[in-house]
Amino acid sequence: MRDVAIIGVGMNKWGELWEKSMRDIYVEAALLAIEDAGVDHIDSMYVGCMTSGLFVGQEHLGSLMADYLNVTPIPATRIESACASGGVALRHGFIEVGSGMSDIVLVGGVEKMCDVGGGEATYALSTAADQEYECYQGVTFPGLYALMAHRHMHLHGTTQEQLAHVAVKNHDHGSMNPLAQYPFKVTLEQVLSSVMIADPLRILDCSPITDGAAAAILCPLEMAKKFTKKPVVQIIGSGQATDTIALHTREDMSWLGATARAAEVAYKMAGVGPDDLDLVEAHDCFTIAEICVIEALGLVDRGQGGKAAESGLTALGGKIPVNVSGGLKAKGHPVGATGVAQVVEMVEQLRGEVGERQVEGARVGLTQTMGGTGGSTAVHIFRRV
Amino acid sequence: MRDVAIIGVGMNKWGELWEKSMRDIYVEAALLAIEDAGVDHIDSMYVGCMTSGLFVGQEHLGSLMADYLNVTPIPATRIESACASGGVALRHGFIEVGSGMSDIVLVGGVEKMCDVGGGEATYALSTAADQEYECYQGVTFPGLYALMAHRHMHLHGTTQEQLAHVAVKNHDHGSMNPLAQYPFKVTLEQVLSSVMIADPLRILDCSPITDGAAAAILCPLEMAKKFTKKPVVQIIGSGQATDTIALHTREDMSWLGATARAAEVAYKMAGVGPDDLDLVEAHDCFTIAEICVIEALGLVDRGQGGKAAESGLTALGGKIPVNVSGGLKAKGHPVGATGVAQVVEMVEQLRGEVGERQVEGARVGLTQTMGGTGGSTAVHIFRRV
Repeated sequence: MRDVAIIGVGMNKWGELWEKSMRDIYVEAALLAIEDAGVDHIDSMYVGCMTSGLFVGQEHLGSLMADYLNVTPIPATRIESACASGGVALRHGFIEVGSGMSDIVLVGGVEKMCDVGGGEATYALSTAADQEYECYQGVTFPGLYALMAHRHMHLHGTTQEQLAHVAVKNHDHGSMNPLAQYPFKVTLEQVLSSVMIADPLRILDCSPITDGAAAAILCPLEMAKKFTKKPVVQIIGSGQATDTIALHTREDMSWLGATARAAEVAYKMAGVGPDDLDLVEAHDCFTIAEICVIEALGLVDRGQGGKAAESGLTALGGKIPVNVSGGLKAKGHPVGATGVAQVVEMVEQLRGEVGERQVEGARVGLTQTMGGTGGSTAVHIFRRV
Repeated sequence: MRDVAIIGVGMNKWGELWEKSMRDIYVEAALLAIEDAGVDHIDSMYVGCMTSGLFVGQEHLGSLMADYLNVTPIPATRIESACASGGVALRHGFIEVGSGMSDIVLVGGVEKMCDVGGGEATYALSTAADQEYECYQGVTFPGLYALMAHRHMHLHGTTQEQLAHVAVKNHDHGSMNPLAQYPFKVTLEQVLSSVMIADPLRILDCSPITDGAAAAILCPLEMAKKFTKKPVVQIIGSGQATDTIALHTREDMSWLGATARAAEVAYKMAGVGPDDLDLVEAHDCFTIAEICVIEALGLVDRGQGGKAAESGLTALGGKIPVNVSGGLKAKGHPVGATGVAQVVEMVEQLRGEVGERQVEGARVGLTQTMGGTGGSTAVHIFRRV
């Protein structure tokens, strides 16, 4: 396979975008990425999106987005892997460029979640869980992650305060990201006194419902300098893995096996390990998720994730900053876009472009995104060339 | 890229499968393909499916199907391209094997459509059209294809009888396919006197609502003989293309630009042309669709598609048999599975395994599947090695 670079990224302001439709926000992000890359055409496109059928009554996003981006008749493929859709879409752009099938590939992600009511949104998201064994019982995603949190507390002594520290950290980071949905700080007291959603998860332990899109332009590494004068970022590792879709069938509900597996594959391909990373964008759909993810990525030992945010290890300026973008927690979580937005942050960090939230001297970073309670995961590793 | 072979295929009996859930029918087809291929593991999987969120309240099919097929933690990706989902999934399996990323890849397709009522099914399928400009006006897919049919009649003199001949032919073929949903013949009189759905399309001009799945196993051509003693079928061409999602924005509503483009790419890659084909599996979701498709594939001149079934050109024993499997019309149309089921027929035909509906001496064939009114298309060309 050919080496693959990312030469452009784009993301619009996330939030409740009542005045824009799904196609509008996708095209906005795609055009930003195209402009950033300096390309005059694209050869192929991927659209990561979880459940636009339920959110806005629209499938067939390959055709729709190619049409509205005015790039027909190029191949355009919609990838769905629940909340990991964007990360899995990136992997397929990586494979397509690597294979030689296409040179310039746009990988976008999008979700328009705010056009439905809260109950409908909860239902739409629940389709990432096992419909016949989980949803049928009435469980929702806050409920499933609450089970994971309780298990983690039971096995490892993790505390509610440690969960809250993840939210405080990511909002600290997000307060420096003008594109974030909630670019403000929260205090530990605010998190711990916020309304309980599913014990032990409070509202400020949860990522929000968001409209948003993000996009990246990939090309063969050897062509990258033809298009851009900016520093080139290479994708040096890609891992994708699955786990059981239902939480109750796993040996340890608080261990993310698919993340561990995808990371193993990506580390091996990249020839780096956790100690080589300068920053990580991880899937903090709930505070407990970040805790479990950093363990599965090997950033901390198993069971030690709860202490990481509390101790400052994963904060900007700490040993391994996690979610400097604000993460899903503060930046927002338009599920299909999240995996691509992680790449936007990563590329801008590795180029040194993000201002006050810059990780100084960042050269190597990792993104991790997962679907459902971790039934699917994509991990990518990036290096500034 | 490496050369890619198909070494196993599988498909179960299609129909209204009340006693089985979506995961059951997918796993059945996947196991048949694995057994047919003689492999003891798979490295990666694709699941083509259009809108399981709306049909059965379940997304995240990569994780679900990997789980129920007991192949976690391999990468598993759900591909959506409306009714072309299966064909686009095949293309991604082809790219992944070709790239060297994986050796043995299972490409499956599935749709469980009969668990909802007719109105809900019509709504679910309408999400393949432009929600904001088409569905909002109340138009459904029979209505959209009826517009295409009227345009074709107006421009080219195509008749209602010619449409009906497509149905008669495909049911003739389907009567020889024991896995078909409707394995029986229909007469021209029966088609022409069947209930009108959307003028000029009658119920027997329409493909049915179906539960079904299909699967294929891909591997590098050079490894194929390690696994199977059966004749090896190579994928020699792959094309994927898009068109505007909405019908009204095309220059000619009866011309399938994405099919023409995908075919052009696939022919070029394969080094063959329409005259080299021994058989074609085409997307006859409505009788008019087959007429438009065979024109866009270059099997007949533009405007001449109506005469093809009438004259016997596209029947078994004719110059270029189209839809010897029975097509979507008689075999059924579980939308996400259709593109993969075409491959099942193609591989079994090229191996010479299908009994009375065998195209004698078939060596080279083409499959074409499309989403919506042709907003996305995948075309593949196959050769018996």
